[in-house]
This record gives sequence, C-alpha cells and structure tokens, in this order.
Amino acid sequence: MRFLHHLPLSPYCRKVRLVLAEKRLPFELRTEKPWDLRPEYMAMNPAGTVPTLVEGNGRVIPDSQVICEYLHDEYPDVDLLGDRYARIEVRRLTAWIDGPFAQAVTNVYVTEKYLKRISGQGHPDATALRQASANLKEHIAYFGWLAETRAFLAGDAFSLADLAAAAHLSVIDFTNDIDWSTNTHVHDWYARVKSRPSFRPLLNDRVSGFVPPDHYADLDF
Amino acid sequence: MRFLHHLPLSPYCRKVRLVLAEKRLPFELRTEKPWDLRPEYMAMNPAGTVPTLVEGNGRVIPDSQVICEYLHDEYPDVDLLGDRYARIEVRRLTAWIDGPFAQAVTNVYVTEKYLKRISGQGHPDATALRQASANLKEHIAYFGWLAETRAFLAGDAFSLADLAAAAHLSVIDFTNDIDWSTNTHVHDWYARVKSRPSFRPLLNDRVSGFVPPDHYADLDF
Repeated sequence: MRFLHHLPLSPYCRKVRLVLAEKRLPFELRTEKPWDLRPEYMAMNPAGTVPTLVEGNGRVIPDSQVICEYLHDEYPDVDLLGDRYARIEVRRLTAWIDGPFAQAVTNVYVTEKYLKRISGQGHPDATALRQASANLKEHIAYFGWLAETRAFLAGDAFSLADLAAAAHLSVIDFTNDIDWSTNTHVHDWYARVKSRPSFRPLLNDRVSGFVPPDHYADLDF
Repeated sequence: MRFLHHLPLSPYCRKVRLVLAEKRLPFELRTEKPWDLRPEYMAMNPAGTVPTLVEGNGRVIPDSQVICEYLHDEYPDVDLLGDRYARIEVRRLTAWIDGPFAQAVTNVYVTEKYLKRISGQGHPDATALRQASANLKEHIAYFGWLAETRAFLAGDAFSLADLAAAAHLSVIDFTNDIDWSTNTHVHDWYARVKSRPSFRPLLNDRVSGFVPPDHYADLDF
C-alpha cells in the first residue's frame, strides 16, 4: 500500500493528497507530528517536513514539490503540468504559492492558529495574524486577476497550480480567515475546484479542538 | 540571444548560470536590482525575484527552480537530474539547499553583507550573522557526510544538487565566511566542482565594493 505521512492542515500535504486523488492513485494517510523529530521519520526525510510519500514498493519520496514532480514522471496519464511551455506558468505559480505566498499568509495562519496549539507552544501572535490578513487581501486580488483573465489559474487547463492554490486557501478557510465575498472571481474559481471529487476527503477532515465554519464543506457556499 | 537577468551574488542566479554552462547553452547576463521594482521586470516575473531567463525567441522563464526544470525538459542532452529514481534525491537535496539551507545560512549572508550595502539599507546585523555561522557549521557536517558516503552529493552521478550546493557555498566563500579546513570531504568535493569549466565565470565575478579572499578563485585552495 502507498502511504502519505501528513498533517491534516498542512497545505503541502493537502496539495499532494489532491494530486494523488486526481491521478486516481489509492493511498492511506499516516499522521506525522514533525516536531516529535521521530528518528524513523527523520531517516526518511532529513528535513523533517511533511509530507513524505512511501510507495507500495517501499520507495520514499519526501517534500511536496519533489513528490509532485515524481508523480508526474511516474504516472503521466493524468497530466497536471501541461505541455513544455504551459508548465512554465504552472510551475511558476505553484512555486510562488508554496514559497512567497505561504510565507506571507498560509504558514502564518498554520503556525499561529494550529501548530502552536497542538504542539503546546503558546498563544497566537495577533500582530502576525493581522499582517497575514493584510497580505491575504493583496494576494486574493492577484488570484482574482488570474481567475478573471484565464480559464484556470495558470492558463487554459486545470493544473497543479489550481490544486496548490486551493490547498492553501482551504487551510485558511478551515480557520474561517477568508472573506469569500470580496472577490467573485476567486469565489467562483474556488467553488469549481472544491466541487471536484478529489477535494471531498479534504472537506471531511476534522481536527481535534477545531470547528471549521459551516461554509467550509458546503459546495454551494 | 538568450539573456539571464541576475545579481552576481545571488546563489539562485549562480545555480542557473552553472546549469546553462554545463548544458553548453550560450547566454548573456543582465544585472537586475530587484529592489528597484522595475515595471518591465515585474511584468516578466511578478514575484520580482532573480533570476529570470529570456530565451532567444522571447519566451520568459522566471524562478530558478522553474528555469532548471525547463532547461531539463528543453535541453535534455546533458542530464543533470538522472533517471526517475535518482532524480528524487537530486530534487530533494536541491529543494533543501534552495529552501531551508538558504533561509538558515546563504540568504542571511547575502542580505546582511551584500544586499543591505548595495541597496543602502544599513549595517549588517551581527546577531543574525552569528546564527548563520552556527547553522553553517551544522550543515557543513551534513554536506560532509554526503560527500564522504557518495561519489557526488546526491549519489553516483554529478547532478543539479552539486551545482546548487556549490552555487550557495561560492557566495558564502566570496565574503570569506567558510572555513574549508573544518571538513576535508566538503573541501575535496568543492574543489572538484570548482574545477569544472562551468565554474570559471563565477570565479571571475567582481562586485563593486567587495574583495573576495585570495583562495576564492584558487582551484588549489
């Protein structure tokens, strides 16, 4: 069996779960708390991050970006990158979402609202959250411009960039930190991605101590 | 003609210069100061980072990771990723070097010693530099373990991971912040990479206001 070592509210893990589901590759989830620095896990993924994928044959693939490239190479039938030119924009957007966007927005929410609580590291930093909220507003405008001018975020085709963006936004939505009314283009694009069968397991995630808002799992939000 | 918009002491730009040279793809350098937020540049690369590659046909490829994947797809003759299994480790290490390693080490040196000076943003933060130096010592030990147990950093073959690591270390060496005597395995591996023809242009870089140490460009350091 294929295993994905993950945390439910990690956007990187959610991105990989979506890619696996889009490619119709069955897998089981194993929860990993990276702050435990479990020696067996560190041996598989020296960076100590989640996710790490373990294939049925025992092959270990750490890091969400490495996993996505591996899944593209290994299971090309459902193509989430596009042709050699389209994939420039797909990879650019995905790298921007997983990098600068995450640093300015998602990682702040995840750290302050989720990781600090479950790892017993104290209370959320209100200043950091206010800054993340301001950053999110700016970036929602950029997503909106992409969604307005293109069929999907990276161009004509549904791609890894849509999955990456939706994975991040779904985490922020779980803690009710997105006002979907501010941008109809982003709302409508997210509604389309959220309705895909690959998204259903994410909407069913429940995290001890957290109650997502009513609209979180509502496809008609 | 192919252009690379770059900064001389950006490890990400150096990595791409090395990949282009290893693949024997001619290019010209254009210096870009990202803090100027030049509209023409921001239109090509909305993240505003360096490098950005512009192909002879006008095609624009931003982001060093996207550029390296693009060059692999487009010019596969000189293969820097390896077969589909070898490339898992190549991509893992490259992502670790460009991500967590850079955050803990290279980006601190680049920001404190170089960017702050050339962009007129004040003096280096001594505390940050001390922490980066401590982090570097730990990570040199990890590079040493890789260099001792493998022919090259990611395995049997020379790869993108060697170029990424050498690009980062070359930047730190430029400001004389590496003590090469602490780990002979890292020293010997770096001497091998540094001796490659692709490395020569990097060793000839001169940056106004900075004098690299004598050993910087010495192949027999």
